[in-house]
Amino acid sequence: MAEFTLDWARAARTGASEAVLCEPKTATQIDAIVEHARADGRRLLLTRLAERKFRRLAADARAALDYEPRSRTAVLGGLAAARHRERVAIVCGGTSDAPVALEAARTLAFEGEEATLMIDVGVAGLWRLLDRIDEIRRHRVVIAIAGMEGALFSVLAGLVHCPVLAVPRSVGYGVGQGGRTALRAALASCASGLVVVNIDNGFGAAHAALRMVGPPAVPS
Amino acid sequence: MAEFTLDWARAARTGASEAVLCEPKTATQIDAIVEHARADGRRLLLTRLAERKFRRLAADARAALDYEPRSRTAVLGGLAAARHRERVAIVCGGTSDAPVALEAARTLAFEGEEATLMIDVGVAGLWRLLDRIDEIRRHRVVIAIAGMEGALFSVLAGLVHCPVLAVPRSVGYGVGQGGRTALRAALASCASGLVVVNIDNGFGAAHAALRMVGPPAVPS
Amino acid sequence: MAEFTLDWARAARTGASEAVLCEPKTATQIDAIVEHARADGRRLLLTRLAERKFRRLAADARAALDYEPRSRTAVLGGLAAARHRERVAIVCGGTSDAPVALEAARTLAFEGEEATLMIDVGVAGLWRLLDRIDEIRRHRVVIAIAGMEGALFSVLAGLVHCPVLAVPRSVGYGVGQGGRTALRAALASCASGLVVVNIDNGFGAAHAALRMVGPPAVPS
Amino acid sequence: MAEFTLDWARAARTGASEAVLCEPKTATQIDAIVEHARADGRRLLLTRLAERKFRRLAADARAALDYEPRSRTAVLGGLAAARHRERVAIVCGGTSDAPVALEAARTLAFEGEEATLMIDVGVAGLWRLLDRIDEIRRHRVVIAIAGMEGALFSVLAGLVHCPVLAVPRSVGYGVGQGGRTALRAALASCASGLVVVNIDNGFGAAHAALRMVGPPAVPS
Amino acid sequence: MAEFTLDWARAARTGASEAVLCEPKTATQIDAIVEHARADGRRLLLTRLAERKFRRLAADARAALDYEPRSRTAVLGGLAAARHRERVAIVCGGTSDAPVALEAARTLAFEGEEATLMIDVGVAGLWRLLDRIDEIRRHRVVIAIAGMEGALFSVLAGLVHCPVLAVPRSVGYGVGQGGRTALRAALASCASGLVVVNIDNGFGAAHAALRMVGPPAVPS
Amino acid sequence: MAEFTLDWARAARTGASEAVLCEPKTATQIDAIVEHARADGRRLLLTRLAERKFRRLAADARAALDYEPRSRTAVLGGLAAARHRERVAIVCGGTSDAPVALEAARTLAFEGEEATLMIDVGVAGLWRLLDRIDEIRRHRVVIAIAGMEGALFSVLAGLVHCPVLAVPRSVGYGVGQGGRTALRAALASCASGLVVVNIDNGFGAAHAALRMVGPPAVPS
Amino acid sequence: MAEFTLDWARAARTGASEAVLCEPKTATQIDAIVEHARADGRRLLLTRLAERKFRRLAADARAALDYEPRSRTAVLGGLAAARHRERVAIVCGGTSDAPVALEAARTLAFEGEEATLMIDVGVAGLWRLLDRIDEIRRHRVVIAIAGMEGALFSVLAGLVHCPVLAVPRSVGYGVGQGGRTALRAALASCASGLVVVNIDNGFGAAHAALRMVGPPAVPS
Amino acid sequence: MAEFTLDWARAARTGASEAVLCEPKTATQIDAIVEHARADGRRLLLTRLAERKFRRLAADARAALDYEPRSRTAVLGGLAAARHRERVAIVCGGTSDAPVALEAARTLAFEGEEATLMIDVGVAGLWRLLDRIDEIRRHRVVIAIAGMEGALFSVLAGLVHCPVLAVPRSVGYGVGQGGRTALRAALASCASGLVVVNIDNGFGAAHAALRMVGPPAVPS
Repeated sequence: MAEFTLDWARAARTGASEAVLCEPKTATQIDAIVEHARADGRRLLLTRLAERKFRRLAADARAALDYEPRSRTAVLGGLAAARHRERVAIVCGGTSDAPVALEAARTLAFEGEEATLMIDVGVAGLWRLLDRIDEIRRHRVVIAIAGMEGALFSVLAGLVHCPVLAVPRSVGYGVGQGGRTALRAALASCASGLVVVNIDNGFGAAHAALRMVGPPAVPS
Repeated sequence: MAEFTLDWARAARTGASEAVLCEPKTATQIDAIVEHARADGRRLLLTRLAERKFRRLAADARAALDYEPRSRTAVLGGLAAARHRERVAIVCGGTSDAPVALEAARTLAFEGEEATLMIDVGVAGLWRLLDRIDEIRRHRVVIAIAGMEGALFSVLAGLVHCPVLAVPRSVGYGVGQGGRTALRAALASCASGLVVVNIDNGFGAAHAALRMVGPPAVPS
Repeated sequence: MAEFTLDWARAARTGASEAVLCEPKTATQIDAIVEHARADGRRLLLTRLAERKFRRLAADARAALDYEPRSRTAVLGGLAAARHRERVAIVCGGTSDAPVALEAARTLAFEGEEATLMIDVGVAGLWRLLDRIDEIRRHRVVIAIAGMEGALFSVLAGLVHCPVLAVPRSVGYGVGQGGRTALRAALASCASGLVVVNIDNGFGAAHAALRMVGPPAVPS
Repeated sequence: MAEFTLDWARAARTGASEAVLCEPKTATQIDAIVEHARADGRRLLLTRLAERKFRRLAADARAALDYEPRSRTAVLGGLAAARHRERVAIVCGGTSDAPVALEAARTLAFEGEEATLMIDVGVAGLWRLLDRIDEIRRHRVVIAIAGMEGALFSVLAGLVHCPVLAVPRSVGYGVGQGGRTALRAALASCASGLVVVNIDNGFGAAHAALRMVGPPAVPS
Repeated sequence: MAEFTLDWARAARTGASEAVLCEPKTATQIDAIVEHARADGRRLLLTRLAERKFRRLAADARAALDYEPRSRTAVLGGLAAARHRERVAIVCGGTSDAPVALEAARTLAFEGEEATLMIDVGVAGLWRLLDRIDEIRRHRVVIAIAGMEGALFSVLAGLVHCPVLAVPRSVGYGVGQGGRTALRAALASCASGLVVVNIDNGFGAAHAALRMVGPPAVPS
Repeated sequence: MAEFTLDWARAARTGASEAVLCEPKTATQIDAIVEHARADGRRLLLTRLAERKFRRLAADARAALDYEPRSRTAVLGGLAAARHRERVAIVCGGTSDAPVALEAARTLAFEGEEATLMIDVGVAGLWRLLDRIDEIRRHRVVIAIAGMEGALFSVLAGLVHCPVLAVPRSVGYGVGQGGRTALRAALASCASGLVVVNIDNGFGAAHAALRMVGPPAVPS
Repeated sequence: MAEFTLDWARAARTGASEAVLCEPKTATQIDAIVEHARADGRRLLLTRLAERKFRRLAADARAALDYEPRSRTAVLGGLAAARHRERVAIVCGGTSDAPVALEAARTLAFEGEEATLMIDVGVAGLWRLLDRIDEIRRHRVVIAIAGMEGALFSVLAGLVHCPVLAVPRSVGYGVGQGGRTALRAALASCASGLVVVNIDNGFGAAHAALRMVGPPAVPS
Repeated sequence: MAEFTLDWARAARTGASEAVLCEPKTATQIDAIVEHARADGRRLLLTRLAERKFRRLAADARAALDYEPRSRTAVLGGLAAARHRERVAIVCGGTSDAPVALEAARTLAFEGEEATLMIDVGVAGLWRLLDRIDEIRRHRVVIAIAGMEGALFSVLAGLVHCPVLAVPRSVGYGVGQGGRTALRAALASCASGLVVVNIDNGFGAAHAALRMVGPPAVPS
């Protein structure tokens, strides 16, 4: 009754390797998925794998995984060698956005894309952003991550030519709680060239960026 | 049963002349209020008085009022002579914010405060704002008006030393509809020195600004 | 007091010609903007210009504009000659999504990008979508437009390799009213490669698509 | 003061045996209910009984109950022998939907209905669903369980002839959190033949399915 | 660009004749759809066709349609002869629920199912409901329609053995406005055998009822 | 199909004469209800009967009804002679609350209860309220009506000994729109002795007040 | 800085002895309040005092208090002797409503009012309610407590003559979570004589009931 | 990758020393920030630093910080000597508002402003507030803190001449939960001179007050 089959065919159809969202799964289910993939010699990216749950995985699984706790990601089969650099910039409003920035960076690295990471260049200190804007402009896609009121999204999209991928962050309190305000600000922005993914969805932003920078590494 | 008494005593207690919110009142009720005030020789500020409703007022009342349709305000007894200038700046994100900017400006003028008005300096074109920031900084209070995602509030509060009064604007569509997103962005802002009033409340922002720039004209 | 300056410099900085959101503006304001642009010999794209408001514009402005009522767009200075074809597909869930599809198509055409338009290929009749999937796959970006429950977004993103830009549509009743359900479905989708813009924002989707398919026509 | 009487008469009136929702009840209350039922020789189905609370029940109660932790259900008096098979299909979007699928399956089994269970056939990998659609079509009712954006509900209802019972799942994050998006998607769906129960309500879906497949086992 | 194809194949796959939701469509679009269907000799059911829009249809279309204004439905090709009676009961909380009750009844009649209609048997006068409960129990499916607080759904589902299809009604004011309270009450009900469709969705309830009472008239 | 029966038996069971909520009913339905009641020689109270709809009633019905436009109420069979006075006080925050105050007063008068009406004693001018507090205290029930932020409810309940019935008013804009803020303020109040009815529900407040001041006029 | 003064004068003004809401207070703050009251020889009612927090109080305070864990209430100075009986009925939808029912009962007992308590007479088994309706009708006020969809409120108010005080209960899951659905159902109810207090506010319902049944025990 | 730079330049631009919001940061991040500031000889204010997290800081950091647990603030480099007194009043509705009041007071003290603190003067006992109103009026700014229904904000703003800064408090249950009701009440208030900051944002209120009472201590 508890059997399930991973969708290996999905990779061929959509150009992405297999990823596993661990949050709603039990340690037992994750163990089974990892074992399956290892048996088939496949690579895997595990996301939203909290440190506490990682520690409850089977010793075999733990040993086979490259786990990074801040980003809550684990990789089976190693990160890909970087085939591309400086095509995707990841820009953060504050140090508390680092976990999602790292989730995006690791997801990109898993596919051979090395992103440029800039932490703490939010709009409260506008000069920090303006000082680095030329560097940011050199990239082909910008992933912008911000919580609170999300003003970074509008300001940034108004300053660059490439697509800006907004990732609202579930950081804040009161009306900012849970990231809803930052999400709405990204969607309601008067700046053009701005597109949005779900709150805290660094993984999704990375995959959308991959589709934007070019064809998948392996033709399909 | 429909009698009512205006709170003339309120002025003495809180330092503001009498103002009347016309939106939820009928033309008949407004006529009675204006007649009352004229009989007593008092000044009045009428707000949220739509042009259509103004036209339904009694001819006497219409003749006695100085009506300005864009701001939907009417004044009985004339605007005060300007006792102060360049203490309050009103900064707008776009031309569609003009009605609320004018409501604030007229409310201030009614109390003898001449505000500096800057339309269309939103963050989508950041340079327009930066070009005028020195001028804005010379004021003692800034009233900032913006709809959509309200990024102007955070950017502005990060660039000046004085209090910034955010007035979210009910301009926008989809998630921006009704001004809720701009309101939440103002409240969740990571910038300091920023305070907020209700959506489209130019009148309230003006009164708060008056309390900030100094004691009421008439000591109490 | 009602003066304003259009941000001609914005084009240089962000690679897009000037566009004007007409919904929150009065006919008088729009007339002034059009006159300004004509005097400067600039092109303009006007969006969300309802037929009723268009008819209230000055005769001069009306004569100078190429107005298309279903999309509620008007163009000053003519559409650009198509420099690119078959790079952007616009896919609709139903005929009621046509207005937004046309807004996107006209916005793209204004920039010289001729989109492929497919109406009424929603998921309720899954085969209509599957029948055309190979044609859709030939494009570099897909703009997907759907109201109601927005299932089209997930299904489509799972079937193509390129970025899918979801435009939720304010079509529906009950819990679907206003497009919120379709918006949330797009954001919560488990499909990867999917990014989202505001409800009914065909203009925004078109601009994001332009940033994705290549550098702006005029280098900056 | 804390006395209470179970509604044994309800069974006769509505055709269902007695079920107890354990979540808002204390272990002491549940013990009393189980003891009561045992004294009367009645069968009971306990739902939403977390493992931690089950362990706090009296030893007698624990021994008398057939507890299944993933579904959080316990049965007093044994499951009924299967009187019917392959009338109800339970189809899941992902492995994280298994707990609710099992709650539905156990509820059906308690009434002698053996359901067909299909895990992990969501729309992200559309072919997994299409591959099994003929098998699904053989049933008289389909219970569909999905979280995130709930696109499975619309796609499935468009592919079968029988009623589809949507059970939104409280799986997801950001805008998908708590299952509201999946719930709204089910209600706003443009597919016909689709009806909805509360989030995570596998029990309710099972009972509705029982009413659909035929008269209660015991005439009333 | 405005071409579209109706999904005639959908009927074969899902067992329902073609229906057209008119609310988001223009009169021109509806005219085209009706003309298409007439040319093919197909029957059509048009729903949510307001009287004002019906009057704007082409004279040909109007003449060909059997329009019923309270239910806002129109039929092309005539209602089917009643093949079944007294299988589906439609029970209303109040006279203001009649429009949705009639939409459901007409939808059922279009498919040859004659429903039993009971208006104004809400729970505020509980005896009106209890007086007719035996008659209601004779049916195989009950469609219950109620606005305000929707207490009818729970009470009714507790009194019958068959499935109860709740249709929340957008009748009410204050917190009852738009039907959200009735919808939530239906979903949160503690009664079993209750399933829910979107607010005011009489059409959807009728189609779900059709799937419950038996196989489609024409085998597929 | 459109027949319906008024619940004459309800009066006997709950002690209230028959009332009809006109908002969701058509003029035709209201005409039928009035005709029915006249034929039976019964009194009726019609509420939420907008002036525009009243004018569309049949001439016979209009002539038989005592209509009061501000309260949107009509009475068939005349108001009862006042059997009680000064038991119920109706206190308003502002003149814009008068329509609901009058609806409550007319509902009470229909049952022979003459209420004391005090308009415009809101908390913004606290002294207006304190000046009349002794008079208010003489009553056995206070109906308090306020929109905006609803501070009147808490202040009033803290100053009297009798039950305070809060009626939130759908007056306000921005976050006050629709009366939700006043409603929540009434429910969240830290003052004791405060109970709440739906937004704008003057009728409901009056009926609750009647139940509080004593047994129904006619024993049952 | 942390000094505070209890409002002993409030009792005289509003007729209620002093009550303390413990939830937002620390154990240290509660200890100080209890010590103060003991020094003054005053009685106190403490509400929302979780067992865990009670155990952290000072030994002196714990010894002086009569604590009842299910209702989370503690009494200093003893419950009053019952001066009145059978005036207030407390009716519950289910056993999970007992904590709030007991909070109301203890609050009433603190003021010398002995309530009649009826647990588990919800509408899912309508006969349980109808069987006891004559007994309920003998009371002067009914406090009705229900979670989930709150249908009990409407049904009950339609069956009795006295005021019904609805206390929505934060019991339920999915759309019923937190008690919002039951609250809205109570407010939107079409039954008359129904008034509402905040979710889980047994204390508030008891105080409102006290104001309804008569003057405070001690004249003021 | 985890490097970051504090915005020391921000102080010069906006007149505030550096403050650090600790809630979304890890202990490791906070340690690094403190170490940085100590190395540079700068003062720091840390806010929302829970006691549990403070205890996990490095011993060096803990020793260097002046930590106050109720306000959850820590100061590096000592509080400033009080340069101003009795310019800012902090007024609380209840003892549970003390944590936020203390956060505001500590933030002001960090900048050399000694505030006057008044706890427990809410509107439920109106006389407590009226008794101290003359003392409150002597200040140049009032920070008002209240949870539940927030009636204090309106009452207070109606009684003083200076600006009132409303800080809604996340205290309450049911509809008051999380402070949303108090926030909305502050925004929807009919009193003038009232401005609002985010829920529980004592820090933000203090900084806005500083901007209102005068130029920053150190000219810029």
